[in-house]
Amino acid sequence: MSVAEKETGRIEAFSDGVFAIAITLLVLDLKVSAPAGSEGLAYKLVGAWPSFVAFLNSFATILVIWINHHNLFNLITRSDCKFMLANGLLLLCVTFLPFPTSLVAEYYGHPGEATAAILYTGTFLMMAFAFNILWRYASYKHQLLGRNVTAKEVKSINRQYLVGPVFYGLAFVLAFVNVSVSLVLTIVLMLFYAATASTSRET
Amino acid sequence: MSVAEKETGRIEAFSDGVFAIAITLLVLDLKVSAPAGSEGLAYKLVGAWPSFVAFLNSFATILVIWINHHNLFNLITRSDCKFMLANGLLLLCVTFLPFPTSLVAEYYGHPGEATAAILYTGTFLMMAFAFNILWRYASYKHQLLGRNVTAKEVKSINRQYLVGPVFYGLAFVLAFVNVSVSLVLTIVLMLFYAATASTSRET
Amino acid sequence: MSVAEKETGRIEAFSDGVFAIAITLLVLDLKVSAPAGSEGLAYKLVGAWPSFVAFLNSFATILVIWINHHNLFNLITRSDCKFMLANGLLLLCVTFLPFPTSLVAEYYGHPGEATAAILYTGTFLMMAFAFNILWRYASYKHQLLGRNVTAKEVKSINRQYLVGPVFYGLAFVLAFVNVSVSLVLTIVLMLFYAATASTSRET
Amino acid sequence: MSVAEKETGRIEAFSDGVFAIAITLLVLDLKVSAPAGSEGLAYKLVGAWPSFVAFLNSFATILVIWINHHNLFNLITRSDCKFMLANGLLLLCVTFLPFPTSLVAEYYGHPGEATAAILYTGTFLMMAFAFNILWRYASYKHQLLGRNVTAKEVKSINRQYLVGPVFYGLAFVLAFVNVSVSLVLTIVLMLFYAATASTSRET
Repeated sequence: MSVAEKETGRIEAFSDGVFAIAITLLVLDLKVSAPAGSEGLAYKLVGAWPSFVAFLNSFATILVIWINHHNLFNLITRSDCKFMLANGLLLLCVTFLPFPTSLVAEYYGHPGEATAAILYTGTFLMMAFAFNILWRYASYKHQLLGRNVTAKEVKSINRQYLVGPVFYGLAFVLAFVNVSVSLVLTIVLMLFYAATASTSRET
Repeated sequence: MSVAEKETGRIEAFSDGVFAIAITLLVLDLKVSAPAGSEGLAYKLVGAWPSFVAFLNSFATILVIWINHHNLFNLITRSDCKFMLANGLLLLCVTFLPFPTSLVAEYYGHPGEATAAILYTGTFLMMAFAFNILWRYASYKHQLLGRNVTAKEVKSINRQYLVGPVFYGLAFVLAFVNVSVSLVLTIVLMLFYAATASTSRET
Repeated sequence: MSVAEKETGRIEAFSDGVFAIAITLLVLDLKVSAPAGSEGLAYKLVGAWPSFVAFLNSFATILVIWINHHNLFNLITRSDCKFMLANGLLLLCVTFLPFPTSLVAEYYGHPGEATAAILYTGTFLMMAFAFNILWRYASYKHQLLGRNVTAKEVKSINRQYLVGPVFYGLAFVLAFVNVSVSLVLTIVLMLFYAATASTSRET
Repeated sequence: MSVAEKETGRIEAFSDGVFAIAITLLVLDLKVSAPAGSEGLAYKLVGAWPSFVAFLNSFATILVIWINHHNLFNLITRSDCKFMLANGLLLLCVTFLPFPTSLVAEYYGHPGEATAAILYTGTFLMMAFAFNILWRYASYKHQLLGRNVTAKEVKSINRQYLVGPVFYGLAFVLAFVNVSVSLVLTIVLMLFYAATASTSRET
């Protein structure tokens, strides 16, 4: 391995570690109270459905981000410290995600749900920005890309990457108006990304 | 390393991270109350035995799944995004496992233990399904397998992989009828997998 | 990389993950109560000294185990599933360690401290046994060792590895008699291993 | 890969694991109370601003340390057990960091904030010392450095590494006198390191 390959290798390893931990920590917010009182466990679990939806949505989103991150690093072969900081910004959003996830789970249907949804969609929006910064820095003048990456591919990814800021921006704005619609939009976006991630490599 | 090898390499690394974290988070559910009152610590620990059994069972099951995952990736040499999503489904079950584990530990012997056991065995059943999806997708028309993998090997693994859905399905059904028998069956299955995992490579 | 190297490589990676997480989870048991009442923070921190000693001791012990594990895998070049299970037993002890660590921290100086110390030293004893099983299985008839490992080296490690079971066994027995002496012995053993680990490679 | 490269490779992997986990565990200290009472969520979040500042500062500091660790291991190509212990000392500080971070977040603006700040800046100071020990041990008589590292580079890094102990020492002393100034200095230092890390490789 060349020094450069070792470099991106270690960034990938560190990022994978952060993704893996953040995705696993989400489970810590699934909690029901200890056995006591007359309320049955099944009833409690059903009542905690926003926790499960938030868990699934955040899990799937981090997974899709990881797949995209993975695909990106098939194109990027070099690294420098600014790039590492941009990657760090993305990781910051990923590690932060369990917090707004637990807020949405706890506050959905209670006063304060709008605030929780704003923070939740805002984190996704930040993530989309961070991903764009990462990619646009790496692809700027082709500085960190592999030789085999064509200008056409770069353009196609540029276009694809606009989806995130635009639609997560919409979800963010919707959170001020209608919490449920805003949260459903984040689920739709996650499904869209899962679908495009699974086809993008076959074209 | 070829691009393909790098690809499966990173999937393995990410999966290993998730396995390692999920297996280690299980310990966070082992808790006894602070020193207070007349009840001795030994007494409390003995009273918490379902926690310890659940911890050991979940730990060993994740370990066995990891060994099987590891063996599988000795046969799989390529990857695509659908495969990554199938792998993500398996990881979802693995990261989710600490939650039903803690429910079983807390609710065993209390009203609600059937619900906890249904969720626990249901998670194992989902895991068995996810493993089958992963393998059957990878081995379908030999698309992601290495060249040295024979059709006979594929058939043998196909047969072996039926054990999971069938017997975890049985444990799941039993959870509605008799919680203890159902939970003991998951322990027996874990021991069976540990035993076959440790012999499979010697044939 | 050959298949065999890839195999031990992934075992090391998974083990490193577990070591890294277990060593980092220890910090979660360091807690002082929120600001309230007249008791100062400095006073609370000083009163929590057993937590800090237990944290340091467990951290250093896992670190030393990791170094030894690392050194061991410089000698071991192949793997099979029984070996993976033996390694799993060691990892079980490592992931379990934060629990008795928190018990010792909480119960030291309270009734029940003997029970906590028995579980703590018992976990170390199990770890020493697991390490011996791992090594003796790998070195049995030289089956998993590299070609460059001499019979003399094997014998020397065999002897060295007796220290663990004997002295952690002693600490375990002492926990029934005198908790403080038993815990101090585990610290002395950790320092001994740190010292020998740091010289062993220079001879 | 030679044995030596495998060695530093595994140290890097283990360290990356610890960095990744410590950086991700920080989020666990972000908590607001459950929906209850008349106090709004937005109000609670604003009131918890010291938690967010402490989270961001600790996150960014660990990220910068990771980048520096990463750069260091581009120069270091060999390892021995003393080096591993020195690296362990650095990791001890990193895993410990979430604890003083949560103390600062909780105690800022309350009696005891000086104690919290002393522990927080003291941890940074220890980290700076550990980094110096690691580097000075590795570069002593060039014993663990790669052949391509020049004496001039070593001298330049020696000088650069004095910044940490001096300025974190200052922050530590200031914590006894003025908590806010001391904490702001740690943020300034983090920004300084981020800035120098991102330029250092371009000269």
